[in-house]
Amino acid sequence: MKTALTIAGSDSCGGAGIQADIKTMTMNGVYAMSAITALTAQNTTGVRSIMEASPEFLAQQLDAVFEDIFPDAVKIGMVSSSGLVQVIADKLCEYKAKNIVADPVMVATSGSALIKTDAIKTLTDRILPMATVVTPNIPEAQVLSGLDIKNRDDMKKAAELIRSQYGCAVLLKGGHSVNDASDLLCWENGFEWFEGKRIDNPNTHGTGCTLSSAIASNLAKGFSLGESVGLAKEFISGALAAMLDLGNGSGPMAHNFDLKSRFANEKS
Amino acid sequence: MKTALTIAGSDSCGGAGIQADIKTMTMNGVYAMSAITALTAQNTTGVRSIMEASPEFLAQQLDAVFEDIFPDAVKIGMVSSSGLVQVIADKLCEYKAKNIVADPVMVATSGSALIKTDAIKTLTDRILPMATVVTPNIPEAQVLSGLDIKNRDDMKKAAELIRSQYGCAVLLKGGHSVNDASDLLCWENGFEWFEGKRIDNPNTHGTGCTLSSAIASNLAKGFSLGESVGLAKEFISGALAAMLDLGNGSGPMAHNFDLKSRFANEKS
Repeated sequence: MKTALTIAGSDSCGGAGIQADIKTMTMNGVYAMSAITALTAQNTTGVRSIMEASPEFLAQQLDAVFEDIFPDAVKIGMVSSSGLVQVIADKLCEYKAKNIVADPVMVATSGSALIKTDAIKTLTDRILPMATVVTPNIPEAQVLSGLDIKNRDDMKKAAELIRSQYGCAVLLKGGHSVNDASDLLCWENGFEWFEGKRIDNPNTHGTGCTLSSAIASNLAKGFSLGESVGLAKEFISGALAAMLDLGNGSGPMAHNFDLKSRFANEKS
Repeated sequence: MKTALTIAGSDSCGGAGIQADIKTMTMNGVYAMSAITALTAQNTTGVRSIMEASPEFLAQQLDAVFEDIFPDAVKIGMVSSSGLVQVIADKLCEYKAKNIVADPVMVATSGSALIKTDAIKTLTDRILPMATVVTPNIPEAQVLSGLDIKNRDDMKKAAELIRSQYGCAVLLKGGHSVNDASDLLCWENGFEWFEGKRIDNPNTHGTGCTLSSAIASNLAKGFSLGESVGLAKEFISGALAAMLDLGNGSGPMAHNFDLKSRFANEKS
C-alpha cells in the first residue's frame, strides 16, 4: 500500500484538517500519517480556539514519520506561523520529500483567519518552490498573485503568474461566483479546465482539505498530476452528492460515501 | 449517518490513537470526530515526545463538538493526566453522553508508558462508572483488579471483579500468552467468549485503539454490546489479515482492507 502524510491542523469536529485528510487518504486506498501543526477547537459554526504545536515538536513529529515510514506523497494544509512553515521546509528538504501538494489555507470555510501574515511570505519563499502543485481558491490566488480575479480570463492570468513566480503547478479552484466551481490546472501541459458538477449542497466544510489530500493520494499511487486532479474532483463530487447534513453551520461531507463494506450498514 | 467521537492522543505515524480511531470509524460507516488529549511524536519503534493539551483546551474541543454535532457513541483512549480525565468526566456528564467505550490505555504496543499513576485513579473513580464497557488488556486488567492473570479462570475472576467494582461491562482482551487472543466479555448477559482467529501478523500497533473504536462505531449504529464486540473482532481480523508491513517496529494494520471503491487501486 502506498503512503501519504498530511501536515496540517486538527479539526475537532472532524470535517476538515487532518481528520478530513485521513478520511480521504484512507478512502482512496493509501496509508495515512499526520504531523499536526495546531489543534483547533472548532465546529461547523466557527473556530473557537487554536493551540499551536511548537516548531520543535512539529520537527519531532516529522522526524518520527520520515525515519520510519517514508510517505509517497505529502499534503500541506493549515500552517499558521512562519516558524512552523520553516520547519516544514527544512524537513521536507532534508528528507527529499516528493509529490508535495501545498494547500495555502488562509481562511476557514466558516470565515476564521488561519494564518499570520508573515507565514504567507515564508510559504511562498520556501514551500511553493518545492511543491508539485499549489491549490489556492480565488481569494488565496488573489493574495498569491496580487491580481483581482473576476472571471475565467483572470483565473488564467493569476495561475500563470503564480506558476512562473514560484515554479510549481497551480490548481486554481473556481467558486460559484466566478465560474460555477470549475477548476483550472496550469502545469507543464498548459492549461486544463476541470468542469465542476453542480451539486446544491451548502455543506462545504473541509472541501479544500479533501481535494488536496485526494490529489496527494492519487500522486502517491502513481497517477499524473492531471489524472490526480480529475480523480480527486470525482471523489469530492461523490462526497458532496451524498448530502450529509450535520451541525448548525456549513457541515462536513461524507468521505465514506462509497463504502460498500458490510460494516457500513446500520442495524436494520 | 451515525456519529462517533474519539477522545484520545494523536499518533503521528497514523496507526494508533485518534488516527486509528478515525480510520476505523470511517470504514465502519460512521462520521468520526475527535478531541485530542495530547500530541505524540512517535513511530512504530516507540514514542519520542508527548505534548499534552491543557485541560481547558480539551474542554473547548469537547464543547465545540457536543454543542454542534452530538456523538452517538464516545470512545476514550489515551488520557495521560488526572486533570484531563476530570475534564472528560465533567463534560460527558454535562452533555449526557451515551455509549461510552473506555480503553484504559496505559502502555503503548512499543512499550512506552502513556499514563501517570494519579490519572488511573481518576479514570476508575470518574470514567468507568459512566462507561458502557471498559476494554483492558491483561496487564491493564491486572492493574484495575489487583489480581494476577495467568489463565482463563483468572480472566473471569478479574473481569467479574472489575465489573462489580465499577458497574460497567468489561471486555478483557486475552493475549497469546494466556489463551491465543480470545477475549472475554463480562456483561449483563453473563460471560461470553470471543474466540480470536489466529493471524500470524507481528504488526499489532494500534490494535487496542482499533478494537475499542470499532465497538463504539457499532454501538452508535444500534447494535447490542455483544453484537458490537463480535463485529469489531471481525473488523480487526480483516485488518490484520491484510498483512500490511510498514515501519521498522511493530507496524500498523490496514484499516481500509476491504475498500472496494474504484479509488482504491493503484495505477496499473
